[in-house]
Amino acid sequence: MPLIEVSYTPENFEVYDAQNSIVVVNDIFRATSAMCVAFENGAKSMIPVDSIEKAREYQKKGYLAGAERDAVKVDGFDFGNSPYDFMGDHIKGKTLVLTTTNGTRAIELAKGVSDTIVIGSFLNLSAISKWLVKQKKNVLILSSGWKGRINLEDSLFAGALTKELIKDGVYSLEHDVEDSALIAMYLYEMAQKDPEKLLKISSHRRRLSKLNLKEDIRYCLSLNKTEKIPILIGNELVDLDTTEFK
Amino acid sequence: MPLIEVSYTPENFEVYDAQNSIVVVNDIFRATSAMCVAFENGAKSMIPVDSIEKAREYQKKGYLAGAERDAVKVDGFDFGNSPYDFMGDHIKGKTLVLTTTNGTRAIELAKGVSDTIVIGSFLNLSAISKWLVKQKKNVLILSSGWKGRINLEDSLFAGALTKELIKDGVYSLEHDVEDSALIAMYLYEMAQKDPEKLLKISSHRRRLSKLNLKEDIRYCLSLNKTEKIPILIGNELVDLDTTEFK
Repeated sequence: MPLIEVSYTPENFEVYDAQNSIVVVNDIFRATSAMCVAFENGAKSMIPVDSIEKAREYQKKGYLAGAERDAVKVDGFDFGNSPYDFMGDHIKGKTLVLTTTNGTRAIELAKGVSDTIVIGSFLNLSAISKWLVKQKKNVLILSSGWKGRINLEDSLFAGALTKELIKDGVYSLEHDVEDSALIAMYLYEMAQKDPEKLLKISSHRRRLSKLNLKEDIRYCLSLNKTEKIPILIGNELVDLDTTEFK
Repeated sequence: MPLIEVSYTPENFEVYDAQNSIVVVNDIFRATSAMCVAFENGAKSMIPVDSIEKAREYQKKGYLAGAERDAVKVDGFDFGNSPYDFMGDHIKGKTLVLTTTNGTRAIELAKGVSDTIVIGSFLNLSAISKWLVKQKKNVLILSSGWKGRINLEDSLFAGALTKELIKDGVYSLEHDVEDSALIAMYLYEMAQKDPEKLLKISSHRRRLSKLNLKEDIRYCLSLNKTEKIPILIGNELVDLDTTEFK
């Protein structure tokens, strides 16, 4: 029977059995939300890199490249990690490069261990859940957190995905949902009753609110805006529908 | 303003600012629950050690020594980590030695970093909360988890303690409760409505239920059975009331 587990931070990742799991990387505010938007808007592929230097090298070679650190776009890059940066025709058919504080690091970690790494966000929640259920494999939800710390928005996503996955009956609440996923699911159920209240006081939201990113936050929390599932093939994220994993 | 944070596993501990925090180590099933019971029953002190070998060395020197691995008492030791092992007159006035799968490891980790390490459980929840509120310092709740994984019972304790701490007004929900603690608190509030339901399906409870430890579980989840707060002084846990921290 397949299991559902959550690694709430990259720091915790190595204790989980990623080798035998599909890893769902998420960084809700905002890297993986932005990635989903990029594919919805026709990006051909995206190369996640774990340092600003690597992103700059790609940019010099002519790639459109983005970089974010501490929730701010790094000077000289074509975009940061706002989903709004990836809307429109300017990225259509292009290969993009992106580095972010937490999200791209999580991808890098998972890369060496699991052979199936997909990108999740609230924006593709239903699509990714439906696809996962069909695979009938262990699911390891890898949240990016904030500098090694567990955070609220990624935990809510982990809970939302767990809840979707058990709806279908492939995963049973009594046998296949480990404590890590159970905690996320209960948190999400609590949040569903009053999501604004819960997120209002989250520490990352406090950080972002200083930066006037309310629109970004609202967008990143909206459900099922796309059917796209970015999947890592080699060093590039591509649209899952264009691969054998379809 | 002091902050409340939770490290859900020892693996995650190093990203938190333990140096400037009082660290509350907890391992609800069952190490820190047993420690609280030991002091309630008159133990003079307890030496937590991180290996079976070290515990055996102490035993050879004449100490009463306990060891638990994978929820089972290790052969040849005087006790395991059941709270019931520490009830009665046989430990009165004695210095005990204990090693457990997760709890003593968490203590060992914190030892090098924070200069104030106390032991928490549901059994001394109210006492430890009242004492913490008087200190007006950062609180870092260090949960032991299960072999590097977040677990339900330790997370519930973290939530219960956070809730107690903010009741008093020294710590404010809006400003001093980080996401890690917020998540625990919401989980605990959810659990309060139906704690049996929540714990019934936890993975550790599934593990323990095979070992016929229902009585232990029930006892470890009961509130405020003791006013004792074990605190680490050098290499030994002692009753906080006998120290300058009183």
